[in-house]
Amino acid sequence: MTGLKEKLNEYIAFTEDNLKKYNAYSENMAAQKNLIDAMNYSLEAGGKRIRPVLVYAFCNALGCDYKKAAAPAAAIEMIHTFSLIHDDLPAMDNDDFRRGKPSCHKAFGEAMAILAGDALCMLPFEVIANDNELSPEQKVRLVSCLAKGAGREGMGGGQVIDMENEERTDVDEANLRNMYHHKTGQLIAVSCMMGCICADADEASIQAAADYGFKLGLAFQIIDDILDVTSTTEVLGKPVGSDEEENKTTFVTLYGVEKAQEIANAVTEEALGCLEKFGNDAFLTELTEMLLKRKN
Amino acid sequence: MTGLKEKLNEYIAFTEDNLKKYNAYSENMAAQKNLIDAMNYSLEAGGKRIRPVLVYAFCNALGCDYKKAAAPAAAIEMIHTFSLIHDDLPAMDNDDFRRGKPSCHKAFGEAMAILAGDALCMLPFEVIANDNELSPEQKVRLVSCLAKGAGREGMGGGQVIDMENEERTDVDEANLRNMYHHKTGQLIAVSCMMGCICADADEASIQAAADYGFKLGLAFQIIDDILDVTSTTEVLGKPVGSDEEENKTTFVTLYGVEKAQEIANAVTEEALGCLEKFGNDAFLTELTEMLLKRKN
Repeated sequence: MTGLKEKLNEYIAFTEDNLKKYNAYSENMAAQKNLIDAMNYSLEAGGKRIRPVLVYAFCNALGCDYKKAAAPAAAIEMIHTFSLIHDDLPAMDNDDFRRGKPSCHKAFGEAMAILAGDALCMLPFEVIANDNELSPEQKVRLVSCLAKGAGREGMGGGQVIDMENEERTDVDEANLRNMYHHKTGQLIAVSCMMGCICADADEASIQAAADYGFKLGLAFQIIDDILDVTSTTEVLGKPVGSDEEENKTTFVTLYGVEKAQEIANAVTEEALGCLEKFGNDAFLTELTEMLLKRKN
Repeated sequence: MTGLKEKLNEYIAFTEDNLKKYNAYSENMAAQKNLIDAMNYSLEAGGKRIRPVLVYAFCNALGCDYKKAAAPAAAIEMIHTFSLIHDDLPAMDNDDFRRGKPSCHKAFGEAMAILAGDALCMLPFEVIANDNELSPEQKVRLVSCLAKGAGREGMGGGQVIDMENEERTDVDEANLRNMYHHKTGQLIAVSCMMGCICADADEASIQAAADYGFKLGLAFQIIDDILDVTSTTEVLGKPVGSDEEENKTTFVTLYGVEKAQEIANAVTEEALGCLEKFGNDAFLTELTEMLLKRKN
């Protein structure tokens, strides 16, 4: 696994350079400087950048230069960032911290955080539409895919299911899987699909990439459920035990840690199976295994 | 002016049918039903539908069937609706009512209103990308135009300028024009441009349509400033005197009602001048004059 870390760092550095470039401040936006600052504050807060990494990795696995996917990779990270900004708002999860820094509304005020999230809903589509590498057909497919995956049938719908589950005491595995499928799975699947679209992949490959993404997203969430009870706040970088505190149904509350880990292992195996279509690409295989074994 | 009202009603009815169609509920979204309901609640709240009307009118003025512009016309009304939902939030303008109905967060709760607004940021791009009438090149141009006009360099930036002006005592005409240009002008200009793009207009026509839109948007805002002091809550459909109450700088506070009306008249004349490029289209001419004389 020697090459994984280097490649990951390369992908992450490319993403962060592009996020800066696409949301650069220019003097004709002097009156909106605080908005640009608030957007950049959250875009620069780091995280695993797993979504752009997946865009590049699928593009690369199909023999296409990953840099061709610069625009959609940055776009999906912007969408992810907007969702975190709005998730942290007092009316939503009311989180004062995000990745060890004050959350956007704590740093810039609630109104600015709402507007920064909103602007990060628009910029991704502008970035894709104005890209110089992709064809109009690719751009249209990417826009369709991203908007659907982030909206009412995707992540947005998942956030609503999650929110409404907090009022329920009858959340079962089917509901939980549906919620994770939408809230996390959709954007992960879209990342994988977007990499394929940039490489002009056939429909069967795009479908296999989506299947992989949904499975990876599910495994990712189950591992989150496990880490919430087995990790420490220091290692995890966010408070542990929050699921129990909020009375959330998770794979751990349904099945216990051991069985939840077995399910995560099995779902990861299924995800790896989807990579056959991509010649069992070494980077994607190692990345998938790393995410299963992650400690934070 | 006999044809204006009929044509307006036709355009509005077409818009409202399409909004229903594009945000239709289907059974595979059972878990997200409340989200769809919240989105539709605000989409159905009415209003002048001036943005979609302008999309159709420019498309039609260029000799193209206005129905070809169904998707972008609905898209821009969704963007406008999302901005109203988020504007009304307690952390923003904190308005309990919108067009005589409880605002979205009053009817569905604050978290759902945030998520309904967010979902209405995504659906417009899905609707444009998945349209069957437009070419990929047209779709890419429409997406670019809409995302830019609604984002940090457009409406979103204008909302930030507006918000920050509330803390200032030195707002002058240049600032006010800049705020109106972004907050209102951009989406109006984009509406006009989108109608041209659907009709495959040349760049000079697209630019003339944008110029018209910015001028119309400015006149629209100045009339708003005037109505806030000269109208009644009954006629206006919203509380009058709110600008003074909130210590807002407006064209009326800067110049008084009479001079503000003169400026609105002059800006409307300039807008009408831009219509030369469109053969002084009768519908657009009458619509422009109607908006100047409007009472609410």
